[in-house]
Amino acid sequence: MTSADAASVPFSPIRWQDDTLYLLDQTVLPDQEVWLRCDSTELVADAIRRLVVRGAPAIGVAAAYGLVVGLQESPGEGSLRERFRQVSDILRATRPTAVNLGWALDRGQSRFDEVAEASDRQTVIQHLLAWAKKVHEDDVATNLKIGEHGATLFTEGDRVLTHCNAGGLATAGYGTAIGVIQSSWEAGRLGQVWVDETRPLLQGARLTSWELKRLGIPFRLVTDSSAGALMSRQMVDRIVVGSDRIAANGDIANKIGTYTVAVLAARHGVPFYVAAPLSTIDLATPTGADIPIEVRDEEEVTDVFGKRIAPQEIQALNFAFDVTPHDLVTAIITEVGVLKAPFGESIRRAFETASGG
Amino acid sequence: MTSADAASVPFSPIRWQDDTLYLLDQTVLPDQEVWLRCDSTELVADAIRRLVVRGAPAIGVAAAYGLVVGLQESPGEGSLRERFRQVSDILRATRPTAVNLGWALDRGQSRFDEVAEASDRQTVIQHLLAWAKKVHEDDVATNLKIGEHGATLFTEGDRVLTHCNAGGLATAGYGTAIGVIQSSWEAGRLGQVWVDETRPLLQGARLTSWELKRLGIPFRLVTDSSAGALMSRQMVDRIVVGSDRIAANGDIANKIGTYTVAVLAARHGVPFYVAAPLSTIDLATPTGADIPIEVRDEEEVTDVFGKRIAPQEIQALNFAFDVTPHDLVTAIITEVGVLKAPFGESIRRAFETASGG
Repeated sequence: MTSADAASVPFSPIRWQDDTLYLLDQTVLPDQEVWLRCDSTELVADAIRRLVVRGAPAIGVAAAYGLVVGLQESPGEGSLRERFRQVSDILRATRPTAVNLGWALDRGQSRFDEVAEASDRQTVIQHLLAWAKKVHEDDVATNLKIGEHGATLFTEGDRVLTHCNAGGLATAGYGTAIGVIQSSWEAGRLGQVWVDETRPLLQGARLTSWELKRLGIPFRLVTDSSAGALMSRQMVDRIVVGSDRIAANGDIANKIGTYTVAVLAARHGVPFYVAAPLSTIDLATPTGADIPIEVRDEEEVTDVFGKRIAPQEIQALNFAFDVTPHDLVTAIITEVGVLKAPFGESIRRAFETASGG
Repeated sequence: MTSADAASVPFSPIRWQDDTLYLLDQTVLPDQEVWLRCDSTELVADAIRRLVVRGAPAIGVAAAYGLVVGLQESPGEGSLRERFRQVSDILRATRPTAVNLGWALDRGQSRFDEVAEASDRQTVIQHLLAWAKKVHEDDVATNLKIGEHGATLFTEGDRVLTHCNAGGLATAGYGTAIGVIQSSWEAGRLGQVWVDETRPLLQGARLTSWELKRLGIPFRLVTDSSAGALMSRQMVDRIVVGSDRIAANGDIANKIGTYTVAVLAARHGVPFYVAAPLSTIDLATPTGADIPIEVRDEEEVTDVFGKRIAPQEIQALNFAFDVTPHDLVTAIITEVGVLKAPFGESIRRAFETASGG
C-alpha cells in the first residue's frame, strides 16, 4: 500500500488514497493491522459507529473525508446540496458525545456553501477534498502544539497515568494525551506510563499499549481498578487524559472511568490534566450535565472478543462516557496554551486568542 | 453425585464426600459446573492458589478440610505431628492476604494438640474431620447472622452496588456481602443490585451474576469504571462488599478496586458497608499498611480466558487487593452486630461479646 498523500506525519489511522478513504480497523488491533476501504457514506458511518475509527479528533477527520466520499457516490435524483445534507445527517447521527464530529460537519457545510454556487459537481468535490486534507493536517499541527505546552508541566522521572486511548489512533496521527506523553518523553521529563486497560473495549490494553510500544516509551498495563491502589502507594505523579467534549465551564466528557480517576487524583493531590484541541470545547454546551452520554450495547460488557464472560440472559448497563466536573481538573492543555481555573474565563480567552482577538 | 453430609445449606462450593474433599471449580463458572476431587495436600493447595476456591471464608473452610486430606495421605517416615505441620505449612503458603486461612489452620492446630496424644492416627483424623465439618457449618450460621444484621440497614427499593464476589461461592454457602443482599431482598428492602464485573478475573461478571441469577434477585452488570457515573447520577443507594482481612483499626483489605468504590462513595455520601465474620478481623494486624498484598501473574491482566488482549511482550502489574482506610467505612457488619466508628473500640468490644465477655 502506498503512503497516503494527506498524511504528513509518520503514522495516521486515516488515509486518503486511490481517491477514497481508508481507515485502520481499531477493533482488531493489536492482533491485526487491517485497513478498511470506506467508499460509501454507509461504510464511513458504520466505521464510526463500530469504533473502527474512534477518538474525538479522529472522528472529526474521518467525518470530513466522509463528506467527500458521500458526494462522490451516485448523486441520485436530488441536487448536490440535498445530497450534502443527507450525507451530513447520516454521519452526524453516528455518535452523540464527541463534539468534533459536529464541528467538522459544520465546517464542511460552511466550505460547501462557499463553493457550491459557483462550481460544478467535480469542482465542489475537489474543494471539499482539499478542505478535508487541511482538517487532517491541522489536527496534527494542533496536537504537536498541545504536546509542547503539556511537556512544560512535567518534571524528570514523572510517572503518568492515562485512561483509554487519546493517542495517534484517536487523532490524525499525533495524540492529545499521548502527544503530551510523547513530548514529555522526548524532553527527558517522563519516567514511565501507567496504562489503564479501559473496559469494556480495552482501548488502553489494545491501543495505548500498541502505540507506546511503537514509540519506545516505558509503560505498564493495569486494570482500571488499580489506579486507586497505585495512587495510595504514591506511584503516580500525574494524570493526563483526552476528552470527547468539554463544556463551556470546563466540565469534561471522556471515556467511562475518567471521572473515577479524577476523584482519586483529587484525594491524593495528583495533578489531573486534560489534553484537547479547542475543537473539543463546545461553547454551546454550558455544563457537563448538558453533554449527551452515549449508552452502547450491553454485549460490550457481557462479552470480550466474542467470548461470553457472564451468564446468559442477564442485563448490563454500558455508559460509554462519564463527566468529570471542572473542579477536579488541574489544567486543560490546548494548542493555544495551558488553561486553568476559573475555566469559564480561561476558555473564553483561549477562543479569543485563537481567533486573533 | 450425592449430597455432601457437611452441607446443611442448599448450596455450597465445598463438599466432603466419599471420604475426601470436592471443590466447585470457580475458574470455569459460569460456563461449566465442574467439581474437582482434591484428595491430596498438593491438590488442595493448588486449588487455593489457582482460585478454584476463593473468598476468605471459603478458603478457611477448604483449608480445614485440607488438613484432614493431608493427614489421610500416606504418612511417610515422620510422626503424625510432623505430617500435620508439613500440611499446614503448605496450605498456609498458598495465599498471603486472606486471614481466614491462617485462622483455620491455627484452630486446626489447637484441635490437633487436644486429641493427638491420647488417640491413634485414625481417631485423630476422625476428630479433625468432625472439627472441619463444624467450621463449615459454623461459617453458614455466622453468615446467616451477618445477613440478618445487615438487612436492618436497608430500606425499601435500595439499589446496592457490590464489588467482586462475597457470596455463597466465597463462603461455605451463604455469602457475606451477598448474604446481606439476600437477607435484605427477602425482607423486602432491596430494589436491585449493581454488579461490578471485577477485573481481572471477573468474579463479579462470572460468579456474582451467577449467584444472583440463581437467587432470583434483580441485578445489572457494569464495568468497574461505571461506579462513579452511577453514583454521580444518584443511581446507587448503598455499597456492600466483603473483606479478605480487616486490621484492628478497621482498615479493610479486599479485592482490587474496593478502595476506589469507597472513595467514590464518600464523595457522593453513599453508605459503604463491609460484611465479614469476626474471623476476618485480625487483631494482630494493627493497620491496613501491615496487611500483605498479593501480587498475581501479569497474564491475568494481559489475557482474558486465554485470549491475549494486549500486545505481546509488554509489562503489567497485578495487585490482587487494595486497602480501604477505616475513615471511608460506614459500618462493618459482623455476626455479633453492626460495628461503627471508632472501629478500634467497636472491634475490641465485638470480640469481647463473641467470647462471652
